[in-house]
Amino acid sequence: MKKVILLGASGNIGGQSLDILDGDRKSFDLVGISVGLQVEKIEPILTRFPSIKAVCVEEQEDVSSLEKAHPSLKVYWGEEGLVALIEETESDLVENALVGFVGLVPSLTALRAKKILCLANKESLVVGGVMVERLLKEGNGQLYPIDSEHVALAKCLSKVQREDVAKLIITASGGAFRKLSRSELTEVTPEMALHHPTWTMGSKITIDSDTMMNKGFEVIEAHYLFDWPVEDIEILLHDESEVHSLLLMKDGTFYADVGKPDMHGPIAYALYEGQVPFVVCHEKGLHDFGPYTFKAFDPIRYPAVPMCLEALAQRGVETTVLNAANEEAVRLFLAGDVRFLDIEKICSAALKNFPNILRPTLREIRSTDALTRLYVERKFGKGR
Amino acid sequence: MKKVILLGASGNIGGQSLDILDGDRKSFDLVGISVGLQVEKIEPILTRFPSIKAVCVEEQEDVSSLEKAHPSLKVYWGEEGLVALIEETESDLVENALVGFVGLVPSLTALRAKKILCLANKESLVVGGVMVERLLKEGNGQLYPIDSEHVALAKCLSKVQREDVAKLIITASGGAFRKLSRSELTEVTPEMALHHPTWTMGSKITIDSDTMMNKGFEVIEAHYLFDWPVEDIEILLHDESEVHSLLLMKDGTFYADVGKPDMHGPIAYALYEGQVPFVVCHEKGLHDFGPYTFKAFDPIRYPAVPMCLEALAQRGVETTVLNAANEEAVRLFLAGDVRFLDIEKICSAALKNFPNILRPTLREIRSTDALTRLYVERKFGKGR
Repeated sequence: MKKVILLGASGNIGGQSLDILDGDRKSFDLVGISVGLQVEKIEPILTRFPSIKAVCVEEQEDVSSLEKAHPSLKVYWGEEGLVALIEETESDLVENALVGFVGLVPSLTALRAKKILCLANKESLVVGGVMVERLLKEGNGQLYPIDSEHVALAKCLSKVQREDVAKLIITASGGAFRKLSRSELTEVTPEMALHHPTWTMGSKITIDSDTMMNKGFEVIEAHYLFDWPVEDIEILLHDESEVHSLLLMKDGTFYADVGKPDMHGPIAYALYEGQVPFVVCHEKGLHDFGPYTFKAFDPIRYPAVPMCLEALAQRGVETTVLNAANEEAVRLFLAGDVRFLDIEKICSAALKNFPNILRPTLREIRSTDALTRLYVERKFGKGR
Repeated sequence: MKKVILLGASGNIGGQSLDILDGDRKSFDLVGISVGLQVEKIEPILTRFPSIKAVCVEEQEDVSSLEKAHPSLKVYWGEEGLVALIEETESDLVENALVGFVGLVPSLTALRAKKILCLANKESLVVGGVMVERLLKEGNGQLYPIDSEHVALAKCLSKVQREDVAKLIITASGGAFRKLSRSELTEVTPEMALHHPTWTMGSKITIDSDTMMNKGFEVIEAHYLFDWPVEDIEILLHDESEVHSLLLMKDGTFYADVGKPDMHGPIAYALYEGQVPFVVCHEKGLHDFGPYTFKAFDPIRYPAVPMCLEALAQRGVETTVLNAANEEAVRLFLAGDVRFLDIEKICSAALKNFPNILRPTLREIRSTDALTRLYVERKFGKGR
């Protein structure tokens, strides 16, 4: 039985994770959750999981009423609260389903505390990849990705010899506007942008799919997760989101994880530490296998991807700048303050504005993140 | 440098094999060929490969003129000639690209002589699978398949653990009439039947693709080649003939060999004993990857397949009866003597007509083959 802390229990991945934890009480004991601003979601989760001993909310003002209603519950708040929740609650496994930069420090905390870290938070690796890598190499904790693409790669890589693999190929839907040219993207509205063709996800990640910033991030994540050279990671557009990613082997064969777009599989893969006894996907026959269509990735159509790769190549705070600028730009776009194509322009401007810092400390990463957000808000926000 | 004997040098696979042997004179030295009835093809091959020391033709009447024209050439004829060619010509590798039952004894001869056997002849395993299996287990020779499906399976199986594999999945185009229902097949002519949608092949194998008898045979071959239970081998219809076959792994992942329909790859794989330094198929980018469409296999639409599996399950001469009946039925169809759907009826009638013989000797297999042909000719041929 593993004691589990679930960060981001109120989100999309968090909700699906609760279902999995609920479905196997013999393996999992949920002891702590965080919910951010959605405090109204706490009550039903506590009713469902009386085993929860600690929660973390975003705002201090929500603490006292929760403490009154649940005297035996330990209530934390804010970013420091996330760290304290992990450090002070006895647990074996931390699932980090937080969205955004806020997920970085909890990831580092969980690894330092030698926990199993199930990671849905992209920013932990995009921004803190070097630090995560170092912690793992020093023998701190274990890391399992939660992401259909990385789980696909992990599953396939676990079954073959590394030296037989030529390339990691990450598939991508291309987002809601995959059929539009760049010039047709100028008039795109947030409402249009939030209609992802194949996956139901949170709004931030859906917009990141439209710009394919998420794929750039996924390449960075794959680089750190599998210690794989970036030049041997490719992106392949794939309409149906059923081929979750592929290995291209040196002998020309392809190894792929194939299945319906459903995050339950990847979440379970991580929670069961890669050991989940999967029912064979197609045991009822191969009736719904395919069709699968693919298209070569065009970096000119999706400049966010080369932007990610260039930022990574700087080996410093550039990925932090890019991530912060993107988070703010997406926020401004969703608020109707900037246009869709401005997201890339804002990211590009931010990257030009901040000098790189090699081998940054966590303090330098945090200040770079804050300064970038300030820069984007002042230069492109409503108050500009 | 390997000394090579190529049986069936005048056929489709033979011709492509000659190109590969021609392209790598450092690895291969062609010392013997057989050409069947197409004696006119001998001269150009001898000019191209002066290393050839022995040839085998089908008819005795062609021997003397060849011996006159090439005094240093050893000339064999007939089925016994094929055996003598293998036994008397110093060689390391025998490629068997013969079509039909005639290929069985040369395969057994090559293995007994401890040669590397590169096998394009399906009948060697369909009819003689048990004997081939026994020879290999007793340490006689080595066997490499030449067939896009089996090479695909061999490549993939060589890179994973056998116990991780759930099923072998053999892909099938479904033949020229894949879009027709069974009732629409009644009026099919040989000319229509010879237009295979994706592969250019000899006429016998093309008709076998239309009935899917070839897939039934391929399941039998895979069973013997990989010592795999028949119930864990599936057929999957696949329009583009680019996914050459797949492994379905127990964790739901799929491992496939993917590439353009071109027999050069599978032939080279066998000739280089699975060690060919393949150029990565898609090294120039993934621009032409997909689309790939699949459809579940329907045994009612293609009764030849269950016929094959039932024959195999009898573990005796039933596969010999089926193969002989099919060869004769296809011949009668191509001659315009019977209709397309009669091919299956003839096979079914032959299977009913002959009692099974368990653990047959080679002599029993040969007589069963001859008797079946006689039965088909008398009952369904022109002279009926």
